[in-house]
Amino acid sequence: MKKLIIFAVTIFAVNFTYRQAKDTDSRYIPLADSIVSIAMNKMEGYKILGELSKAGPRLSGSENLQKAEKFISEYMKGCGFDTVYMQEVKAPWWERGDQEICILKSDGKTDKNLSIAALGGSIAADLTADVIELSSFDDLEQKKDQVAGKIVFFNVPFNQKNLYTFASYGEPVGYRVSGPSRAAKYGAVAVLIRSVTSLYDNVPHTGTLRYADSVKQIPGAALGVQDAIYLSEKLKAGKPLQITLKMNCVNRGEATVHNIIGEIRGKSKPDEIIVVGGHFDSWDKGDGSHDDGGGCVQSVEVLKLIKQVIGRPERTIRCVLFANEENGLKGAIEYAGLAEKNNEYHYAAIESDRGVFAPLGFNIDADSATIARINEWLPVLRRSRIEWVEKGGSGADISRIKGARALIGYVPDSQRYFDVHHSDNDVYSAVNAREMELGSASMAILTMLLSEVGLD
Amino acid sequence: MKKLIIFAVTIFAVNFTYRQAKDTDSRYIPLADSIVSIAMNKMEGYKILGELSKAGPRLSGSENLQKAEKFISEYMKGCGFDTVYMQEVKAPWWERGDQEICILKSDGKTDKNLSIAALGGSIAADLTADVIELSSFDDLEQKKDQVAGKIVFFNVPFNQKNLYTFASYGEPVGYRVSGPSRAAKYGAVAVLIRSVTSLYDNVPHTGTLRYADSVKQIPGAALGVQDAIYLSEKLKAGKPLQITLKMNCVNRGEATVHNIIGEIRGKSKPDEIIVVGGHFDSWDKGDGSHDDGGGCVQSVEVLKLIKQVIGRPERTIRCVLFANEENGLKGAIEYAGLAEKNNEYHYAAIESDRGVFAPLGFNIDADSATIARINEWLPVLRRSRIEWVEKGGSGADISRIKGARALIGYVPDSQRYFDVHHSDNDVYSAVNAREMELGSASMAILTMLLSEVGLD
Repeated sequence: MKKLIIFAVTIFAVNFTYRQAKDTDSRYIPLADSIVSIAMNKMEGYKILGELSKAGPRLSGSENLQKAEKFISEYMKGCGFDTVYMQEVKAPWWERGDQEICILKSDGKTDKNLSIAALGGSIAADLTADVIELSSFDDLEQKKDQVAGKIVFFNVPFNQKNLYTFASYGEPVGYRVSGPSRAAKYGAVAVLIRSVTSLYDNVPHTGTLRYADSVKQIPGAALGVQDAIYLSEKLKAGKPLQITLKMNCVNRGEATVHNIIGEIRGKSKPDEIIVVGGHFDSWDKGDGSHDDGGGCVQSVEVLKLIKQVIGRPERTIRCVLFANEENGLKGAIEYAGLAEKNNEYHYAAIESDRGVFAPLGFNIDADSATIARINEWLPVLRRSRIEWVEKGGSGADISRIKGARALIGYVPDSQRYFDVHHSDNDVYSAVNAREMELGSASMAILTMLLSEVGLD
Repeated sequence: MKKLIIFAVTIFAVNFTYRQAKDTDSRYIPLADSIVSIAMNKMEGYKILGELSKAGPRLSGSENLQKAEKFISEYMKGCGFDTVYMQEVKAPWWERGDQEICILKSDGKTDKNLSIAALGGSIAADLTADVIELSSFDDLEQKKDQVAGKIVFFNVPFNQKNLYTFASYGEPVGYRVSGPSRAAKYGAVAVLIRSVTSLYDNVPHTGTLRYADSVKQIPGAALGVQDAIYLSEKLKAGKPLQITLKMNCVNRGEATVHNIIGEIRGKSKPDEIIVVGGHFDSWDKGDGSHDDGGGCVQSVEVLKLIKQVIGRPERTIRCVLFANEENGLKGAIEYAGLAEKNNEYHYAAIESDRGVFAPLGFNIDADSATIARINEWLPVLRRSRIEWVEKGGSGADISRIKGARALIGYVPDSQRYFDVHHSDNDVYSAVNAREMELGSASMAILTMLLSEVGLD
């Protein structure tokens, strides 16, 4: 009898959940379709990204960033949100300078001018030295007696076989971040890395380096892949080679930058905040359209789409354009700190910072019941081409927020991301309007469900 | 008791199928990973497509096509297949000519030179006439008394809201194919269509038109989207407008072109043929890298990958580069006819003709048991990023093959396909190496399973 009761209760519960899910589908699929239709036919986000990109790249401390902050905050004020405001953030201020010279020399004569970009945060360089190629940190440890006085060249290729390219980013990026201090420990005078990219062009890809506290700072730069291959072949031929490296980049101390925030207040649960965001700064190459101007504009578009299709939502929806993700994460730290101080409750947060390519899925950092709940919404999410919802990491900026029930990373197709990442290839013309707008729609649909249906 | 036996048999059958599926997974997942690894690290297909694209676009009858046929057949001969041969095909031969002029005039003065491309198969034009804009064939029927002596302008936009862009192609393409004869019936002197594309640039997109037998032939051309919008706005302003249309395109009769075929003979079932193919001709714009040079090179790569990873397969695997898909389908008709005449048995066929973008799924034209069977292979297919296997149409060329157990269409992401389709935008630089190679790997993995595991 007891078993029968458990059975009956289970059947009832399953049936109830099933009916509840069906109700959600029939109510929210038409609204999802409206969101897709508006996003795809108007393409407002894509057009605004075009305007934003005209300011150029947006590194913390740059004049471009100031122009871009002004542009986007004025645009947001015109969108009819309940409030638009800024949070002041103190961020590292590094400038590339106008000199980036890397001359390969053989017998004292110029062999080739190599294409480089200083790594973000690097000190300046004015030196000539022999070069030693290394394939890994293990290789460095084995040859530690050979690197003193030399330029260390970490030649670690991008492994193309991973379907998800972020899996290929993890290994080589370690040489960009830690390579200079690891090599300096054994007396190296500078570090060159092979650019971390999925392309075989010669455009160098920058990104942050981190100096260890106890080690002498030495300059670091990324080589274009074609020149990295060229240099490796020359070195293998065995002739002694020197490189002259001149860079006048400089660390200028601290700059004042801003988190830019727009908000629609919730109707019945205004104190339950759903954040959608990206980071507004970019590296100083290209115009930062994919990383992460596009993610910011998508986040603004989510609020616009919700306003058009839902009107006033049940919960508060807030877009946050975080400052200084690239070389400090100071915007995320400031935002989370203020939220804690003000006792704000974040119900959920969604981040878009993997390029504005076609949607694939959402990564959810939450307990398994919450992930299962969001999975129930797949029939609605599929209306904008979301294929799956899975457990996974969310994003660097929102991961600082405490107490949220779900931290969510928007996952677009990653095939082309590291073609453009941190380089002159990351420009507006590399953004496809349909792909970007499908992303805005996907994020808006999930935001709608989080706000209107909720996680219980 | 009878019920119990049925139950036991069902459990056994389910369990057996489950174990069989697990065996397939454990055996073929490592082989699938090898295929992906070779395709992604070597990128041979992508490189060969670069060489092929240098011949330029490959319309039936063109010198470019002859050069390209020579290049690809010699390449295939170097791949070590068991046999490489050609089938002669008689195909329509149309040439664009060197004159495509479309001048919008107001009060007899030039207002703007409009960007056009003659539709494939169009007769030449040398005329000046008033313009009438129509939004549909219904609109034509309602205004049939107003079109005599005029140029009919079908202004039908691409509906951006469909996730799968081929769904948006269906409607406007009807005006390209049938518009000229439908309008000629009521005395129109020429037809202009708004280009069928998902972009908002001004590049005209060509494609075939079909003249009805009983109606006078009139010229047809596609306008760039920006100029279509411009013309529409001018017409709405109400001023009388004329267009001067000059095109010296010409139908030259019949050309001799070729199906190009390469084959690896099966070990145990040589008479069961699995075809992988695309079409080798293209429109005479861009260089036809997506439509469908890429699909052809992927098909050749499937054989190369199978050879490297499996050695000799159980069944015969044949790549077919079909002639003349764009303006006649004569290659497909010839291939299927010869196969029938020679009593060849096609076990299955896979076609790649939707651009060489990142994989999404496979459309299967087969009975439901066969579709269910292929669905069991999803754990293996996912190794190259295939998300789903669904019932659906296969492809224009293989659909002529009779008696195959499964006709399969490779379905990549369609977001960017109609940006490039039939236009100067369809060039090698619009192909992404990773996306293309993931497609080759997906097709190779499915071919391996069809050959080695089979559909029973």
